[in-house]
Amino acid sequence: MKALVLFSGGVDSTTCLGMAIEKYGREQVTALSVFYGQKHKKEMEAAKQIAVYYQVEHLQLDLERIFQYSNCALLSHSDQDIPKEDYASQIADAEGKPVSTYVPFRNGLFLASAASIGLSKGCDVIYYGAHRDDAAGAAYPDCSKEFYQAMNQAVLEGSEGQIRLEAPFIEWTKAEVVRKGLEINVPFKMTWSCYLGGEKPCGICGTCRDRAAAFAENGILDI
Amino acid sequence: MKALVLFSGGVDSTTCLGMAIEKYGREQVTALSVFYGQKHKKEMEAAKQIAVYYQVEHLQLDLERIFQYSNCALLSHSDQDIPKEDYASQIADAEGKPVSTYVPFRNGLFLASAASIGLSKGCDVIYYGAHRDDAAGAAYPDCSKEFYQAMNQAVLEGSEGQIRLEAPFIEWTKAEVVRKGLEINVPFKMTWSCYLGGEKPCGICGTCRDRAAAFAENGILDI
Repeated sequence: MKALVLFSGGVDSTTCLGMAIEKYGREQVTALSVFYGQKHKKEMEAAKQIAVYYQVEHLQLDLERIFQYSNCALLSHSDQDIPKEDYASQIADAEGKPVSTYVPFRNGLFLASAASIGLSKGCDVIYYGAHRDDAAGAAYPDCSKEFYQAMNQAVLEGSEGQIRLEAPFIEWTKAEVVRKGLEINVPFKMTWSCYLGGEKPCGICGTCRDRAAAFAENGILDI
Repeated sequence: MKALVLFSGGVDSTTCLGMAIEKYGREQVTALSVFYGQKHKKEMEAAKQIAVYYQVEHLQLDLERIFQYSNCALLSHSDQDIPKEDYASQIADAEGKPVSTYVPFRNGLFLASAASIGLSKGCDVIYYGAHRDDAAGAAYPDCSKEFYQAMNQAVLEGSEGQIRLEAPFIEWTKAEVVRKGLEINVPFKMTWSCYLGGEKPCGICGTCRDRAAAFAENGILDI
């Protein structure tokens, strides 16, 4: 059994990578990181270092051109700033639509790319770290359980059952993901979450706030 | 209403493009052609000329790197030759698995890319020209109705219902696609189907045979 793990270098996907390595062994695991035109490359740098730490094969893919027409706030060519509010406020402002940091169908594109590459490399399963908090209030619809189930069906049908998806955190909160990561000694110190690319995390963007809260719920300061 | 059409420059997708233009008007239609590392660029050249003929916006995307690990017979780096048998023989040889010209999850990847681009450009629908004959016997599982339905659900869920798929030929034979194309004056002379990149179509690869048969069923020689 071989697994391909979608791996951004953040808390969730690094925990996902750690779980896949625990289950399959590091020689049966390949990590796939996708650059899509973010305002910074801190995540990608973190991903490279973590892959070295875990001693897993690490593939990198550049899909920036696909998002050249999008004005999503995460993208370097966008004229929108990264919001400084927490997700709850952003979700309320978005009125049932995705938030301004939603990258159009990003996870669908990443999973389809992973399916193509995974099939070519003889993998049986694709892991990805979407969790319940990211899907809340339609903030990121491509993190929802409904999306995961439909996409898994599409991957199964389109590959004649040769490869499938596995989203172990789809019903978990981010705090539960962190708890699992702590249990299996995920090197959280090496991960990067912040949407901005400063020397240190900004502490006020949605993802910084979520990360801090998830660690706090586990009774510890972010490590 | 705006439509994005997956457009290879072959018979099926050109008919699909013609239908979308009939329905939405050419100013509301964008054609998207994807190069994925084929052994030749004849399709892409045909696609460019047909887009000029129809006067539609034409986007081109290069996803060759995603398939660098695949040994599919259509790809330039593959050591497999294009089969010279008809699809029925190939399907029998494949014993319930996809044929050697199946590009791993290609249509899933193309549709996911189209969803990302279509959302960025404010499109409501993605057209693609998969038909029943291509799905027969699991030859190309990413042309099946089951795949289409699951992928449409994934696109709907992952975009919060902002964009959907439309596969008008999903229950049609290729002969029925050609009949429709003839009705709406699709410029079939400009299309390219052959898997090889010679000056003229080879006449013996699976897709050449299928094309000739589809025209013959309509009582005419290929035009």
